[in-house]
This record gives sequence, C-alpha cells and structure tokens, in this order.
Amino acid sequence: MPTTNGKRPVNLAILGATGIVGKELLKILDERNFPIGQLKLLASERSKDTTIHFRGKEYPVELAAKDSFKNIDIVLSAAGSIIKELAPAAIAAGAIVIDKSSAFRMNPEVPLVVPGVNDSAMDNHQGIIASPNCSTAQLVIPLKILHDLAGLTRVIVSTYQSVSGAGSAAVEELEMQTHSLMHGQTVEPKVFTKRIAFNLIPHIDKFNKDGYTREEEKLVEETRKILSLPQLAITCTAVRVPVLIGHSESVLVEFARPVTVEQGRNAFAASDMIELWDNTEDNVYPTPIDAAGKDPVYVGRIRKDNSSSNALHIWVVADNLRIGAALNAIRIAEYLLEHKLLRQPVAS
Amino acid sequence: MPTTNGKRPVNLAILGATGIVGKELLKILDERNFPIGQLKLLASERSKDTTIHFRGKEYPVELAAKDSFKNIDIVLSAAGSIIKELAPAAIAAGAIVIDKSSAFRMNPEVPLVVPGVNDSAMDNHQGIIASPNCSTAQLVIPLKILHDLAGLTRVIVSTYQSVSGAGSAAVEELEMQTHSLMHGQTVEPKVFTKRIAFNLIPHIDKFNKDGYTREEEKLVEETRKILSLPQLAITCTAVRVPVLIGHSESVLVEFARPVTVEQGRNAFAASDMIELWDNTEDNVYPTPIDAAGKDPVYVGRIRKDNSSSNALHIWVVADNLRIGAALNAIRIAEYLLEHKLLRQPVAS
Repeated sequence: MPTTNGKRPVNLAILGATGIVGKELLKILDERNFPIGQLKLLASERSKDTTIHFRGKEYPVELAAKDSFKNIDIVLSAAGSIIKELAPAAIAAGAIVIDKSSAFRMNPEVPLVVPGVNDSAMDNHQGIIASPNCSTAQLVIPLKILHDLAGLTRVIVSTYQSVSGAGSAAVEELEMQTHSLMHGQTVEPKVFTKRIAFNLIPHIDKFNKDGYTREEEKLVEETRKILSLPQLAITCTAVRVPVLIGHSESVLVEFARPVTVEQGRNAFAASDMIELWDNTEDNVYPTPIDAAGKDPVYVGRIRKDNSSSNALHIWVVADNLRIGAALNAIRIAEYLLEHKLLRQPVAS
Repeated sequence: MPTTNGKRPVNLAILGATGIVGKELLKILDERNFPIGQLKLLASERSKDTTIHFRGKEYPVELAAKDSFKNIDIVLSAAGSIIKELAPAAIAAGAIVIDKSSAFRMNPEVPLVVPGVNDSAMDNHQGIIASPNCSTAQLVIPLKILHDLAGLTRVIVSTYQSVSGAGSAAVEELEMQTHSLMHGQTVEPKVFTKRIAFNLIPHIDKFNKDGYTREEEKLVEETRKILSLPQLAITCTAVRVPVLIGHSESVLVEFARPVTVEQGRNAFAASDMIELWDNTEDNVYPTPIDAAGKDPVYVGRIRKDNSSSNALHIWVVADNLRIGAALNAIRIAEYLLEHKLLRQPVAS
C-alpha cells in the first residue's frame, strides 16, 4: 500500500466503472487500501444512471465526457477506444491516464508497463501509461525472470484464455449456453463466433491478413516492447476456452545460454510476483481456479524441452482480471504515487 | 466398405464392449456396414451380465477370458492392460488382435498403425497391431502430409483434450460437476486430480521423472514410430479441457525446406482424410463441436511461424473417440480384410 505521507489522497476517475474490469478495479482499490480522495465513476451512455456502492457510500455513475476530469490526478481507464477522444482532455486537466485499452500501447511515446518488469519506463511519461493485454501481462513476468537468467532467444506460446477476458456479456454467454445445453436446449452464439460452452474457439479479437489474430499480434508486439527486446523471436496461438476466470499459457522458451530446470525454479522462487507450483510427484501445478481471485502469476510444469537444447517448457496461469487488467493498472498508480510521478503535487 | 467377395464374413470379438470406445466401435461398425459373422462382446467382471443391442439383436456381454477367442478372426480391444494377458490366447486361437491400449505400441515387433499414414507396417504383422493414443492419431495424419511436402525437422504441440478421452466416468464427472456448480454446490474431483468443470488441467496420465506426463511421452514416441522418424525433434504439453468430445492441437511444424501457406493448404486439400477449414476472413476454422461425430481430421489456422523461417502453425481438431480410437481400429480391420492379411482364410 502506498503511503500518502500526510498529503492529500489521490483524486481518481474510473472510466468504464460498470464493466467487468471496472468492478475489479474498485474491489482491488479497496483491498489494497488505496488512498482515494475524490472518486469519479464514469461510463458510457448505457450505464450512466446507475450507482455503485464503494466503501460504504453510493456513487453515481456519470457519463464520461471531456469535462469529467477537473481536479482528477489519475484516470484508470477500463473503457475501450473512447479513451482516444477523452485522454487529451484528461491530460489538459492535469491527470495521468492509466489505460487498459490497446489504443496507446504501441505508441512509442507511451510507456507500456508491467510493474516489477519495466518500472523505469514510467519515469518520463507524457501523461499516459498503457497497461498491456491480459495474455501479455502474465507472460512477461516469468519471461523477464528467465531473460535475466539466460537470455531469451525465442518464445512459443499457446494460450487457454477464459471468457471473462471478453467482458461480462461473454461470461453470461458461457453460463447461459451451459445452462441451456444441460437442459437439452440448443444455443445460438452472440458474443463469440461459435458456441463456447463445452467447446473452445481458436480465435480472439479480429483476424489480420497474415492469418494471425490481433490478440496473437498484441502478445508478440507488447512482449517485445515491455522487455525492450524489439527483435525477440516470439509467436502465439490464442484460444478461448470455457473457463470463467484465469488464463493459462503453454510456453516454450529458448535461451542463449544453457539453463537447468533447477535454475529456472530457483529464479521463480526468488520472485515475489510468482507462485511456484511445480511438484509433479504430488500433482502440484496451477489451474485457472487456483489463480482466480489471486495476485501472483502461477508457474508450474517446468521441464527441459525434449526437441532442442537450451530450452524450457513452463505453464503459466494467472487471474486475467487482476494481473491481466485491474491489478496491473493499480500497481502502476501505486508506483506513480510512491515515486512522486503524479502531475499535480498530491499535498494538502 | 470392404467387400466380402462372397466369402464368409468376419468373426469379431470386442474386448471392452461396454466402455466409451467399445460403444463407438459398435456404432462405427454398423455405419460402415462392416461384414460381421459371429460377434462376441467381452468385458470385465463388472459388466459381464449386461446385454448390448446391435443390428436388431441383443448380445450378451461375456466375461473376457483366455478361452473367449475360438473361431474369432479379429479381436478389437478397447480394454486396458488386460489385453497383455489375453492376447497370446487370442493369437493361439488364430485371431489378430487390434489393440487400442498402450500395452504393445512401442514393442518393435508390433506395427503401430494409422491407416492412410503407414499402411505397409501391417504387411508383416505377428498377430497384434496397435492403434495409437488419441492425441497421436489425429496428429500424424497432417504431419505425414507436411513431411512429404517439405521434410519435418521439429514439431511443438500443445493439446486441448476432451474428457471423453478419459472414459465414461470422466464424461459423467464433467457433467455432474457442471450441474453442481450451476446450482451453487461445491464439487469434489474423483476421476481427475482437480475440478474439470469451468477449469482445465495440465496433466494427463501419470508423471514421469523428467516432468513430462506419459501422455506427452506417448505422443512423442508414437509419432516417431508411425512416421518412421526415430530422431524427430518433437515435444508436447498435454492439457485436459472441459469439452465432451474432440481433441484440439496447436502445432508448430518446422521444415527442412521452405514451404508456403498455400502449399500447405493445397497438400491438405488433396487428402481425403483431412477437411481443410481455413478461411479466417469468414471465421472458418474448426472447433471440437464441429469435429464430434465426424471422420476427418480438421485443419485450420495455417500460417507462417513469425518466430522462425521454414515453419508453419496448424490447428488440428478431430473426434478423439473416432479417428483417435474406434475408427482407426476399424480402418485397420478393413485394411487387413481388403489385403487378405487375416490369419484364417475368411471364406465360406
């Protein structure tokens, strides 16, 4: 928990407050006792007349607009591309925008940050800090540790991504379809292109011309940017699975230098962002339900690649709503606060 | 459908007739109009007093024993390691054993066969022909095509395997757990080590000392044997997912020679064992529910690897009970019949 050192607490605006990540933001802010002064909950037209209960108080949800940011220190944006229109106004009002969307991530002037991995990227921010895609955030934490250990040369990822990564309507679709199928009824996909209940879909976000999805492209580009390895050989197949919360990744990592399983385990064990669950003798390995609601990235199934030298397999599981979204944004806010990187002095 | 050419039809014994693969065997034998004379349904003590309806007749399920094989031409074994004890008696009685278990697969004297991939391995059989593990069977069909095209040098597989691969009790466990969770009840895993409903488990079969599972080891060893590439660099991560029928595989294939996506597509399109579902512009790619109940191996998401040269990604989906088990065994039987490889002349 960042300390306020007797100064005034942070004035926060949450954009997209009624969505699945918005709700997670409020939950984690409370859990971590984040020092909040003024709290503004912003959303689109659809949600504007609702209220949200937080720390014993009802907050009205206001329509997000260019004049929403007066006196705001930090905007936590869990909205989509609407932030493109609103960010300049927020910055002009003196706020810093921490954005969960893909709008600014690959902009060379915008730091793309996973605290604990590339903190110093925040030091010269220009008012916007981007938080990566969920499947990237949980991947770069173990990758950074392995890179420091033996130098990454190639990364091959297959993902198993839960439906909550696609928002509340996707969670509802999995639940409704499951209910219908259990009662012998047929189902019609709406959020996803195909049925997701008791099925899986090798398609997340739009397809590019080269046959990769945007999701796969994001994982590649964002990992390179966060790790400052612009030439890293990295590839991905992204798959949606009928899991509610928790993304899993089967990752093959090739190295410049030899590395043993034991060295990998020791490096992970020494990190306070990783929970090492790797004891196959006792069936210890992480699954999505183990990671749901938790802060660490869980790593298991560490083993030598048997198709090359100098490579390890790892199995990575994390709560996509937390480390993959809300928790990462709040850790960015905590870092800004702690390192006095807010644009207006947070003082009484 | 094999023709009997006026000769007597085949006397068949099905071992493990009451299991999930046993039932699939009977369904497919009927679909394909397999010429059956005598039909013996064998099972363990647990199922011995039941009956099974097939082609308008009730068949008693008999206890499998060493004297069960008199006059039998082919034993289709979907039982476990009990076949080790029974196979010598079946062979002594003049039968050929087509075995779905892992008991004989890696025995150098036993052909391990996927019809359409390595048929000639059957020509000098010694009375037993092994059918591979489900995740191997669907993999080697596209791999053989790609090997003929450009020479495999390395294969990296992550699987998404349905619960039916673990038998009827596993299917029931997914259904029961899903029902309980939808009604707010807690669940206790029995067949699997962890909850499978709305979850996934990176653990199939037992763990070896090197950190791989037997399932992963089987895929590696069996693929090498079937493709006659004993040194092939190949590795696997095998994961159980909450899908009822249909295994999916994310496969990265590296080649000795350059190969384009178009060449890969054309090679698959020319195979009568593959359905090419690969048009991302129209969201065409296979998912488990597309493959369930169908005979082909479905291939989609073909694209250039962006982490190396001379490599392609493919996405492979098939019905694990059919191509991965019952259909493959019956295709072996059909081949034996067609090529007069039965040990007793099938003649009137």
